[in-house]
Amino acid sequence: MASNEVPPITRRHDPSRRGFASDNYAGVHAAVLSALEAVNGGHEGSYGADAYSANLANVFRPHFGDRCEVFPVFNGTGANVVALQSMTKRWDAVICAESAHINVDECGAPEKVAGLKLLGVPTRDGKLTPEHIASRLGGIGDEHRAQPTVVSVTESTELGTCYSIDELAAVCEASHRSGLLVHMDGARISNAAAFLGVGLGALTTDLGVDVLSFGGTKNGLMLGDAVVVLNPEAVSGVRYLRKAAMQLASKMRFISVQFEVLLGSDLWLVNARRANELAARLATAVRDVAGVTITRPVEANAVFAILAPAVADRLRTRYGFYTWDEATGEVRWMTAFDSTEADIDEFAAAIATEAATGPG
Amino acid sequence: MASNEVPPITRRHDPSRRGFASDNYAGVHAAVLSALEAVNGGHEGSYGADAYSANLANVFRPHFGDRCEVFPVFNGTGANVVALQSMTKRWDAVICAESAHINVDECGAPEKVAGLKLLGVPTRDGKLTPEHIASRLGGIGDEHRAQPTVVSVTESTELGTCYSIDELAAVCEASHRSGLLVHMDGARISNAAAFLGVGLGALTTDLGVDVLSFGGTKNGLMLGDAVVVLNPEAVSGVRYLRKAAMQLASKMRFISVQFEVLLGSDLWLVNARRANELAARLATAVRDVAGVTITRPVEANAVFAILAPAVADRLRTRYGFYTWDEATGEVRWMTAFDSTEADIDEFAAAIATEAATGPG
Amino acid sequence: MASNEVPPITRRHDPSRRGFASDNYAGVHAAVLSALEAVNGGHEGSYGADAYSANLANVFRPHFGDRCEVFPVFNGTGANVVALQSMTKRWDAVICAESAHINVDECGAPEKVAGLKLLGVPTRDGKLTPEHIASRLGGIGDEHRAQPTVVSVTESTELGTCYSIDELAAVCEASHRSGLLVHMDGARISNAAAFLGVGLGALTTDLGVDVLSFGGTKNGLMLGDAVVVLNPEAVSGVRYLRKAAMQLASKMRFISVQFEVLLGSDLWLVNARRANELAARLATAVRDVAGVTITRPVEANAVFAILAPAVADRLRTRYGFYTWDEATGEVRWMTAFDSTEADIDEFAAAIATEAATGPG
Amino acid sequence: MASNEVPPITRRHDPSRRGFASDNYAGVHAAVLSALEAVNGGHEGSYGADAYSANLANVFRPHFGDRCEVFPVFNGTGANVVALQSMTKRWDAVICAESAHINVDECGAPEKVAGLKLLGVPTRDGKLTPEHIASRLGGIGDEHRAQPTVVSVTESTELGTCYSIDELAAVCEASHRSGLLVHMDGARISNAAAFLGVGLGALTTDLGVDVLSFGGTKNGLMLGDAVVVLNPEAVSGVRYLRKAAMQLASKMRFISVQFEVLLGSDLWLVNARRANELAARLATAVRDVAGVTITRPVEANAVFAILAPAVADRLRTRYGFYTWDEATGEVRWMTAFDSTEADIDEFAAAIATEAATGPG
Repeated sequence: MASNEVPPITRRHDPSRRGFASDNYAGVHAAVLSALEAVNGGHEGSYGADAYSANLANVFRPHFGDRCEVFPVFNGTGANVVALQSMTKRWDAVICAESAHINVDECGAPEKVAGLKLLGVPTRDGKLTPEHIASRLGGIGDEHRAQPTVVSVTESTELGTCYSIDELAAVCEASHRSGLLVHMDGARISNAAAFLGVGLGALTTDLGVDVLSFGGTKNGLMLGDAVVVLNPEAVSGVRYLRKAAMQLASKMRFISVQFEVLLGSDLWLVNARRANELAARLATAVRDVAGVTITRPVEANAVFAILAPAVADRLRTRYGFYTWDEATGEVRWMTAFDSTEADIDEFAAAIATEAATGPG
Repeated sequence: MASNEVPPITRRHDPSRRGFASDNYAGVHAAVLSALEAVNGGHEGSYGADAYSANLANVFRPHFGDRCEVFPVFNGTGANVVALQSMTKRWDAVICAESAHINVDECGAPEKVAGLKLLGVPTRDGKLTPEHIASRLGGIGDEHRAQPTVVSVTESTELGTCYSIDELAAVCEASHRSGLLVHMDGARISNAAAFLGVGLGALTTDLGVDVLSFGGTKNGLMLGDAVVVLNPEAVSGVRYLRKAAMQLASKMRFISVQFEVLLGSDLWLVNARRANELAARLATAVRDVAGVTITRPVEANAVFAILAPAVADRLRTRYGFYTWDEATGEVRWMTAFDSTEADIDEFAAAIATEAATGPG
Repeated sequence: MASNEVPPITRRHDPSRRGFASDNYAGVHAAVLSALEAVNGGHEGSYGADAYSANLANVFRPHFGDRCEVFPVFNGTGANVVALQSMTKRWDAVICAESAHINVDECGAPEKVAGLKLLGVPTRDGKLTPEHIASRLGGIGDEHRAQPTVVSVTESTELGTCYSIDELAAVCEASHRSGLLVHMDGARISNAAAFLGVGLGALTTDLGVDVLSFGGTKNGLMLGDAVVVLNPEAVSGVRYLRKAAMQLASKMRFISVQFEVLLGSDLWLVNARRANELAARLATAVRDVAGVTITRPVEANAVFAILAPAVADRLRTRYGFYTWDEATGEVRWMTAFDSTEADIDEFAAAIATEAATGPG
Repeated sequence: MASNEVPPITRRHDPSRRGFASDNYAGVHAAVLSALEAVNGGHEGSYGADAYSANLANVFRPHFGDRCEVFPVFNGTGANVVALQSMTKRWDAVICAESAHINVDECGAPEKVAGLKLLGVPTRDGKLTPEHIASRLGGIGDEHRAQPTVVSVTESTELGTCYSIDELAAVCEASHRSGLLVHMDGARISNAAAFLGVGLGALTTDLGVDVLSFGGTKNGLMLGDAVVVLNPEAVSGVRYLRKAAMQLASKMRFISVQFEVLLGSDLWLVNARRANELAARLATAVRDVAGVTITRPVEANAVFAILAPAVADRLRTRYGFYTWDEATGEVRWMTAFDSTEADIDEFAAAIATEAATGPG
């Protein structure tokens, strides 16, 4: 059967509909799709023994420095769990914000797969400080306590905020001074860099971050995140841990090339900046709407707001988004690289209209 | 930046080169690539809340029956580990052939991630029999033993052989009679069905297989395998286990639609049959070559042969393939859907030439 | 060599010295030692197939009701980890106080051995309330979250306080109403029963506690805790989990008989009451000492107090005890069944003397 | 309640009855019981901070050399799982005989608790050879394979045989030459030393064994095994791993002192030699009985024999013992330190009588 004999796929979704539940409601950037086609055809080594995976060092090192090593994986949870395992021994603990993805949204994978204890610290804005870290070091050397070994920060945070360079530097410095390694969950690191107006290395390598979970999926890829080892002395066994964590792709060329598209051009920045700008545009448009309260600084590509549940429910009949906090009615709106100003303006107008109608 | 402003990817590999190390050296079927493009654009629910994932029941049920439930995952190791966990409790054991992928090629993921004990049985041809199963049931009810609960068969096997329908039926019957569930690692189930000339359900649902790891990646997909639950009473918590095993794709529409291409047409069969035929062609071509001994029945898409190491090494300068057994010099040649008769004939000719030259 | 030819052991410690670091600084009650001797001699079934283990139901059921099943283990951590595993599936979470032993003092065993996620709730006094429980139920049914399945309470708590019957009843009722099971860490349940003036069943079975970790070691045994299943429908696989958790004693008669001594008489109550009374005596004696502040209600056998670090350090040259909170200088003094009023009075006098001397 | 007010324990078993199912059917040596009494009384540091635990180096080093470090645990499974974890990383595998206790009799604890993959090798006599080890090294460096890192030998073996010094030396040498560490499961190491007529160090430290699970329970203790680190560079984190494996005793003085009794005198040798001699006596007595076939060399304290199942069943009405192999009817008789020649002669006579009666 030639390919043209396979019946073409019918589109089952309405591409004009917009959702704000997550930046992974978006599809794939056209340049990524083109690249998938370009690398197809013929036989290439599997499990990373292909020319595109071999080239990844050239793709990442201009951003992250000459010592970095790259291990593509399937998703952000995979990147985090592989990274944390490579940095810890069996009896170790990881200090993180209570709101961290690893602590809240990974169905306990760090505990279940890696046996790690997470020491979650309540924070106001999703950002750890040296004081937070110091507060969890009490049990070092005590055999009754899982041993704190890694500090995991998320940049940008799950709350749409960004650590400043100084804030991150302080966390890295405090961690290292206490003998801890630093892991960054960078599922949205590009959004943070875009917000701060710096390069990716300025947020990571330059500050002494040891291992990065680099996020591609939320920034225009079809599928692909990566464990980026910035300090090779901080890890061991990444290759084995990736396979044992079921994160080793057989036809890896199709993942690796996506990173080449993203980081071999300015696409990482263009996409992230656009998503951020659309979030800012949305926040600006609804900030003064009666019945809508923006609850957190809008820095990356998320807007958090409180509005009446009935209003939210009516909006949701047309636009997907999540309630973040049932107790307060706070919702989260996320923007993605593939929306337009018109999309945002339409959504903002709908918010204003529904808010004016009120809880009804 | 419009997509046309992203510099196009340079092809880094030579698509005319052929490799026989694995069927995942192949690329992606053109119809699959087309489908990825077709489902792009616009916003769709993530983590499976999309129209293509919702449609998967319609895609799989014509093959596997009306009770089947489908959980796409990233790869075969992921499918196996999620499936086995869903069928077992924390103290359980799994009976499998010593040569099984779960026992040999998954870096211990079943043990490490799921805490399972594998009870590997030596086999001549990669196929379990009722006698093999009976031999591992001694410890049932004894608290000192991990409890045998699942029998895992691989169809087609890692040795290129296929269980016949009768053989599989006997294993299923013996397993169920002893209170055990049956898991099938179907990374290459399509090749088995093509060899046996039966449908996919005839190898699984009709025989009482409880859970199937359905393989797509090796049969023309870019990336995608699935846990297919044939007996919903045999499992619990698949959704949670998939997420905790880091196998839940965010932009799942791009995985789900690939299954629609494969199983919504005859592509699964066309691809598998072609790969099988090319293996048979290769075996026929080299069977009588002096210095080459075909070592196993050629049923699916693998040819195992013994030849002088020096001969193998010379061939490997042009064609990738693995040594299967260092001790005997046995090698494995795998064929894929995307090769031509000419490719095979060229390879066979090279084998004959090098064998004639001898160990040198 | 007859036993009298083995050189007798030299006492290496000074039995007149008193420590207040833990109730497990105490030794073994004389009646327990006598019982160990009584059951020695001859051959008895191992791994629980002995007459003393067979008799345990008769020992525990008068306290905990006719459905209870008893599984002796080596220590409290073992009891907790076996109990929690028997009540949960692989993807589950356990709600507990942030101060719970399982969360703080078990080197991450629940995460590492059982893969559980602990959802720790900050509390003022170590006691969970229905409101605390409700606050952690948000993710039920969401595959991204480890699923809350068990509420674990500690009675008496790690802070020396006791849930009242009404408080425990409210927690059990709220848990069950939300579909959660209740586990009790009863490492010091006897102290709670003594404080509250009720039987052991009134704190557990009568309120609907599903599984209890019953503590013997801290209350006069040499070694021995037990998983006591009060609701057999709440668990599965305890026998296998106990063995896989390395908690199955071979010569179990020597553990089982200790429970017979403790619970077959009033010894559990006599020992616990005495320890409680000594704690109350200590608190009364130092409550009005200038420079000493009792910080928590003294209900079971612990006294928490803040005093100047230099004062604490001088006391520690003669009496062992722990600093509970480095930040505040809070210390913990625990009393045990084997001390006398004179011991306490001597320690109280030393505290008064050192406090009068001041930080120096 | 004074101790004399606690009702004394009634003996529930018949101490004159003999069992041959396991050496842990035996009780406790009188000198051990005396020592438990001697160390009772007063307050001592918990979790190993006591004078008897502090003295353990002095107890073990005369046997195992000046570098050895001792970590008491509760049982042999605990010792094995802690030892193996301390020698491995998360992705490692352990080579062992298929008949090894870690592979057969620990309910999968090495897989479940430590995530280890065991590479079991079939052996004739329970003993690994350099060839066996070489056969399992194929996957070193291959990320698809759990990485062989430790060779675990059992001395004496589960089959009642003993590695000779030369055999052990060859295994150690081959392991180290391949970069592997050596663990010894020494649950019955004293029986092996007694059989071979050498000291404990001659079987371990002198040959380069890296870590030993030292067995006390089967050789006259009430309860107590130990992880004995012979090569401190081979391990990390033993203290944390012991606690996380729930093997850290609170009142540890009562375990540590038992080792002092055993190893601080010749008791380890006297007990082991006696058990061995009784096994040899039994084998001699029944070797020529018609209907009884001794199946394995009788070297340590086990006798394996085949006899008619009906004969075995009749014997079992009076003497406990296990069927080792249902298929062949092979049974195992174990002897212990606390039996007499008369006990053995009586049992041998019963065997002869029942064998003469025949399968009936």
